[in-house]
Amino acid sequence: MDFGYDAKTADLIEGVTAFMESHIYPAEKVFHDQLLAAGDDRWAWDSTPILQELRAEARSRGYWNFFLPGERGAGLTNLQYAPLAEITGRSGHLAPAVFNCAAPDTGNMEVLNEFGTDEQKAQWLEPLLEGQIRSAFAMTEPDVASSDATNIELSIVRDGDEYVINGRKWWITGAMNPNAKIFIVMGKTDPSAPRHAQQSQVLVPRDTPGLDVVRPMEVFGYDDHSHGGHAELRFTDVRVPVSNVIAAEGAGFAIAQARLGPGRIHHCMRAIGLAERAIEMMCDRATGRVAFGRPLAEQGVIRDWIAESRVRVEQLRLLVLKTAWLMDTVGNKGAHTEIQAIKIATPRTVQWILDKAIQVHGAGGLSQDFPLAESYAAIRTLRFADGPDEVHKNSLAKAEIRKRQNS
Amino acid sequence: MDFGYDAKTADLIEGVTAFMESHIYPAEKVFHDQLLAAGDDRWAWDSTPILQELRAEARSRGYWNFFLPGERGAGLTNLQYAPLAEITGRSGHLAPAVFNCAAPDTGNMEVLNEFGTDEQKAQWLEPLLEGQIRSAFAMTEPDVASSDATNIELSIVRDGDEYVINGRKWWITGAMNPNAKIFIVMGKTDPSAPRHAQQSQVLVPRDTPGLDVVRPMEVFGYDDHSHGGHAELRFTDVRVPVSNVIAAEGAGFAIAQARLGPGRIHHCMRAIGLAERAIEMMCDRATGRVAFGRPLAEQGVIRDWIAESRVRVEQLRLLVLKTAWLMDTVGNKGAHTEIQAIKIATPRTVQWILDKAIQVHGAGGLSQDFPLAESYAAIRTLRFADGPDEVHKNSLAKAEIRKRQNS
Amino acid sequence: MDFGYDAKTADLIEGVTAFMESHIYPAEKVFHDQLLAAGDDRWAWDSTPILQELRAEARSRGYWNFFLPGERGAGLTNLQYAPLAEITGRSGHLAPAVFNCAAPDTGNMEVLNEFGTDEQKAQWLEPLLEGQIRSAFAMTEPDVASSDATNIELSIVRDGDEYVINGRKWWITGAMNPNAKIFIVMGKTDPSAPRHAQQSQVLVPRDTPGLDVVRPMEVFGYDDHSHGGHAELRFTDVRVPVSNVIAAEGAGFAIAQARLGPGRIHHCMRAIGLAERAIEMMCDRATGRVAFGRPLAEQGVIRDWIAESRVRVEQLRLLVLKTAWLMDTVGNKGAHTEIQAIKIATPRTVQWILDKAIQVHGAGGLSQDFPLAESYAAIRTLRFADGPDEVHKNSLAKAEIRKRQNS
Amino acid sequence: MDFGYDAKTADLIEGVTAFMESHIYPAEKVFHDQLLAAGDDRWAWDSTPILQELRAEARSRGYWNFFLPGERGAGLTNLQYAPLAEITGRSGHLAPAVFNCAAPDTGNMEVLNEFGTDEQKAQWLEPLLEGQIRSAFAMTEPDVASSDATNIELSIVRDGDEYVINGRKWWITGAMNPNAKIFIVMGKTDPSAPRHAQQSQVLVPRDTPGLDVVRPMEVFGYDDHSHGGHAELRFTDVRVPVSNVIAAEGAGFAIAQARLGPGRIHHCMRAIGLAERAIEMMCDRATGRVAFGRPLAEQGVIRDWIAESRVRVEQLRLLVLKTAWLMDTVGNKGAHTEIQAIKIATPRTVQWILDKAIQVHGAGGLSQDFPLAESYAAIRTLRFADGPDEVHKNSLAKAEIRKRQNS
Repeated sequence: MDFGYDAKTADLIEGVTAFMESHIYPAEKVFHDQLLAAGDDRWAWDSTPILQELRAEARSRGYWNFFLPGERGAGLTNLQYAPLAEITGRSGHLAPAVFNCAAPDTGNMEVLNEFGTDEQKAQWLEPLLEGQIRSAFAMTEPDVASSDATNIELSIVRDGDEYVINGRKWWITGAMNPNAKIFIVMGKTDPSAPRHAQQSQVLVPRDTPGLDVVRPMEVFGYDDHSHGGHAELRFTDVRVPVSNVIAAEGAGFAIAQARLGPGRIHHCMRAIGLAERAIEMMCDRATGRVAFGRPLAEQGVIRDWIAESRVRVEQLRLLVLKTAWLMDTVGNKGAHTEIQAIKIATPRTVQWILDKAIQVHGAGGLSQDFPLAESYAAIRTLRFADGPDEVHKNSLAKAEIRKRQNS
Repeated sequence: MDFGYDAKTADLIEGVTAFMESHIYPAEKVFHDQLLAAGDDRWAWDSTPILQELRAEARSRGYWNFFLPGERGAGLTNLQYAPLAEITGRSGHLAPAVFNCAAPDTGNMEVLNEFGTDEQKAQWLEPLLEGQIRSAFAMTEPDVASSDATNIELSIVRDGDEYVINGRKWWITGAMNPNAKIFIVMGKTDPSAPRHAQQSQVLVPRDTPGLDVVRPMEVFGYDDHSHGGHAELRFTDVRVPVSNVIAAEGAGFAIAQARLGPGRIHHCMRAIGLAERAIEMMCDRATGRVAFGRPLAEQGVIRDWIAESRVRVEQLRLLVLKTAWLMDTVGNKGAHTEIQAIKIATPRTVQWILDKAIQVHGAGGLSQDFPLAESYAAIRTLRFADGPDEVHKNSLAKAEIRKRQNS
Repeated sequence: MDFGYDAKTADLIEGVTAFMESHIYPAEKVFHDQLLAAGDDRWAWDSTPILQELRAEARSRGYWNFFLPGERGAGLTNLQYAPLAEITGRSGHLAPAVFNCAAPDTGNMEVLNEFGTDEQKAQWLEPLLEGQIRSAFAMTEPDVASSDATNIELSIVRDGDEYVINGRKWWITGAMNPNAKIFIVMGKTDPSAPRHAQQSQVLVPRDTPGLDVVRPMEVFGYDDHSHGGHAELRFTDVRVPVSNVIAAEGAGFAIAQARLGPGRIHHCMRAIGLAERAIEMMCDRATGRVAFGRPLAEQGVIRDWIAESRVRVEQLRLLVLKTAWLMDTVGNKGAHTEIQAIKIATPRTVQWILDKAIQVHGAGGLSQDFPLAESYAAIRTLRFADGPDEVHKNSLAKAEIRKRQNS
Repeated sequence: MDFGYDAKTADLIEGVTAFMESHIYPAEKVFHDQLLAAGDDRWAWDSTPILQELRAEARSRGYWNFFLPGERGAGLTNLQYAPLAEITGRSGHLAPAVFNCAAPDTGNMEVLNEFGTDEQKAQWLEPLLEGQIRSAFAMTEPDVASSDATNIELSIVRDGDEYVINGRKWWITGAMNPNAKIFIVMGKTDPSAPRHAQQSQVLVPRDTPGLDVVRPMEVFGYDDHSHGGHAELRFTDVRVPVSNVIAAEGAGFAIAQARLGPGRIHHCMRAIGLAERAIEMMCDRATGRVAFGRPLAEQGVIRDWIAESRVRVEQLRLLVLKTAWLMDTVGNKGAHTEIQAIKIATPRTVQWILDKAIQVHGAGGLSQDFPLAESYAAIRTLRFADGPDEVHKNSLAKAEIRKRQNS
């Protein structure tokens, strides 16, 4: 057992941290302003000049595609990437994109890398790896509890050499961005097959006729344009060639599962980075703000919040890192309980810290003058992502009881 | 001791409830759409046709100015008004305004009614009571902990027959509405006076030169245009006649205190109405939504939330009602501890209920498709309104300790 | 609506409060020492000289049988008795017994008063009302979830003019006291009857052959001898005449329900009294104890606990009082939801306050030097009494959902 | 970074786990019964036949003095010992003593091993390492906030070749055991020295004249005789030779600090073992107990508790292990924040789990029929041990703020 980072990771942590300080933090406001100035084009966040510049700079340093194992990516393990994801989470609107490590592109690239045909790779994976286009993953549906992927109802019917797709999706992150050129769409190809073999994943280019981007979903009052929003989509007799299926008909559920583990690690580590920045802001504000004759930092209740934040985040980080290590050493299946556990533990812990950071900032903490309320909104959605916490708790408890019965 | 409503209150509860069902709930979406369609005029919420119609109808039934005791208003006690405020809180964007009971106009009318000169009443109170204009109360400042009114720094300097006002304010609710014609502005007239006699409140018409509405503050991404937003204001050599002072120079702090009690009762009761509606939505959703083969309503954890919500809100309402009763019987000062207690207890209780209601609704609960996230944002601000909870807790505890020492 | 006490109640509150201060608080240690000195007779708490003296004095002032409505008791309503119960809860080991208002005798007297025959009243109710004997109520069984009274399995079989009783009971409060002369025993007389008509309640004198007091149950190491402990009982062919049935065969469930409402009010109000005393102790300790150079009372976290305690207990008391009022005005059935709600809300609220009071007292707070840990243990059991909280929450939520579906 | 145990640790985990199952769990009831049967000798827990047998067996397997690094002990690092401490915590009354790893002897042996003279080692350390005698550590005092060691007031005055000791101590764990032959006593030798150089630690044999064991302290209703209770001590002109000082006059504070880190790791790991056993009991009970027609294990709320328990304990354990690793690699001082963090996080987490385990067991969970309530009492004391949580939080927060100011 060893809680230290290996030399490669330590180097990357140092380098990326320095890059954050020299390039990314100073660019946050610029990015925000360029997007606002873009008006109706605000969804096209990846076309902002500042992002283009930062990406070029990052890439020149080799800070690129950290998330992807193997030779196409940076060749890092989950455990090696995790602390880097944490660092990028400190500037979650900007940093992940700078390093071409932003969701949902990361998951889509992983899927294409692992399951795509050579043609699919050439057409979609290469430009994604180059950062030329963006993508979306269309799974969640408004009418079913989508945490159970077998509930998915979008219909994919084969008609000769084509699939005909009909149905609705919502909360499709990134899809409001016109540069999100390709959608991986999950649907049902064979309702009569065994329960986990009914679904398939199909590549649908954005401009395919019949695919309508209906509206942006909002989270609290935010449209999240800085990472492409969350679209509601309608598919009406959308046709794609059968060669657009990923892996095979019926493989949709399995691919979705494979995607889940790394995605969760990334989300959780970024959330921890965000929590760390919130703690820093809390300390800074507590030091700088005077009320009733002394700095907030001298008030016991506020110290209690700061101590609690530190105690909670230290425990949380270790569990996420251990989960990454398990995935690297025994695989996603062996890490199943831990993957559920971090899904349960992360959002609520970080939400609690953000709530206290907001409280220390006064009403301003809820406003556009600080990033705290927007972060809170983003973290709150994680309590639903991949299914509400309650589903995961229920499943984890059943496994715990079963384990005990078998002991 | 008697926990039943008197006959007059019971009649009003019945009548207003019926009016909500027949007129207000059906109009909620219309109001929302009319505001959206108004584009840049969306701040002028009180000019929407639907609101005008509803106000005419409400007034014709005598449902008008419930909040104001005495002959100018509906002649209700705090205890009689409280359950009506709760009912209006169920549709908090619309109903309070329909009955001319919306904050901050209510507090401003109370102040003018109690402390205004005949001229001030004729010029400003009358049109407010008629619902012809709106108003704002400018107290909070960005640079000081405004929960302690003695910290207020906006400068009001007498120059002959005029006051010259300089300074900044923010979170001035309602002030983005161009029809908010009059601002009650709190500032410092005499920095050398005893601590609670330094402040004055002065009437400043909206169109006074030097008064700039700088920008709207946002809360979790919402601009709250449906009740006039929250403005940042800048006063640069703003001049008003000395006759615009309310009551007297140096009376600002006392007036602010007098305003506090009723305002808090109203806020808390409306919040309870909102909580009741959230519980209804939670029950409806739990009954109608099936996940993993059975309605959510059959899941133990969700039942736990529903039971908790009921248990918490029942206790909370009684404390708010008792506070109203105390104000009616022993006055604001005698009700001081209880006024603090409801300030502490209400926001967090209602926030908790809203969080669970959101969770039962899935990701949709965070979106524009349901009112829950917007309500959550509104309630979250109450943990800062009139000072953060922590200030009130500290004060309440000191009083508790002192009481014990004196016993 | 009126939150003031009526004149009769106000007088009693004043008188009983004065009596507590002059007679009961000073006697607490004496009572405790007399019990300890009694060694193996420590269960016979009601034979201590100090208790005998205090009872005589209380009775001479008319402070007797407050709990019992009608002419046999003090003629108070539930609402009038509630604040007196709270006061006695401040010295919960001693004061309820001094006024002959200690559970489980109170419930047993209510049952005999309402359902007993003249012979039963003469034989058992009269000496109980006189405070000459004690009693117990034997319902809970070790092998079934006794929160659902229909699960009760103790067998009561008619054999000629006698009932033959066989089975086990535990947690029979008061039954270790040799002066607990009469047990009301709940059991099953007709397993083939409809579900709520299978049970009967039967009077079993303590010295009936076949009735064994097996052992005292402990709660967190306490044997609770100061109110007669909690016994495990074994019934082996215990025979009593059929005239010992209460009301009628098959009426057991209904009687148990009737007993429930008042009992819960009493428990909850006493618990609130205990919480009030804990708050006082917390304030006193915080004022008197210096750590790191200043009194604990100046530490923000401790002030937070004091404020929280006040805010929580104020809300809780009002709900218990309203429940009493509902029972008086619309009956136990009409107050069903509220009776459940106070059962859920009271123990956890008071437990929280006690935990903080303990923490303020340091390790001593857990020891025999202060009453806090013992109170904590007692309150913790309330989360099981009449069924665990979770059962009540589940039931309350179902009712809430049903109410909404019917609206 | 590597979350796996090294081969040596893995071997020991396997062996000790097997020994627990074959020898220790089956002996728990025997040990308990032998102590009860011993009546007034119940404090002499280490003289029970069963413990003697188990110790001999354990020692024959080399399972002895795990806690002590170096050649006198088992030669394990903190990180290697930690999982073994967890396992022994599953049977916390018995297992630590079987392996001669029970507090406070462990800390005392560490101190003697590190700071003792050869004579002190020969006289006291050797028999302790052999398990022939027990010891106590007398630090806490009733009249001062002992969490700050500089507050200690017991007076140690040099008089020629002797120290004369006067003062009071309480909560001296193990000291009720007549076989606790030696006390390490902390007191003030030089009130005029710099604040951290005023204290000394002195060896005081149990039978020294003037040393009175006044009474046992109770925790809730437990006297904790199975590990020697918690004594109140009075020192009246107690005289020991000056050679009994440990290390040097004035070194008391430094020795106390050195003792702190390992002690906390041990406590926390044992508490985690206890939590694991509680989770197992919770699962077993939930599976075996039927209420309202189905096993408790099918109720959502109970599953929620089980899942929560797992999620919380996984995070907690990792932080304790990391703390052990830090102590091994960068020393106690470098691990200061983490040592505080586990002190804060462990008791409350384990207390929460025990509370839920109790609730699943019904009222029996609070009684002598299950170990849960006694464990709860033991864990509750940890929120005071080495100072209340609040002191540690305050200190941790100050360090966090300082770290940020220096960044």
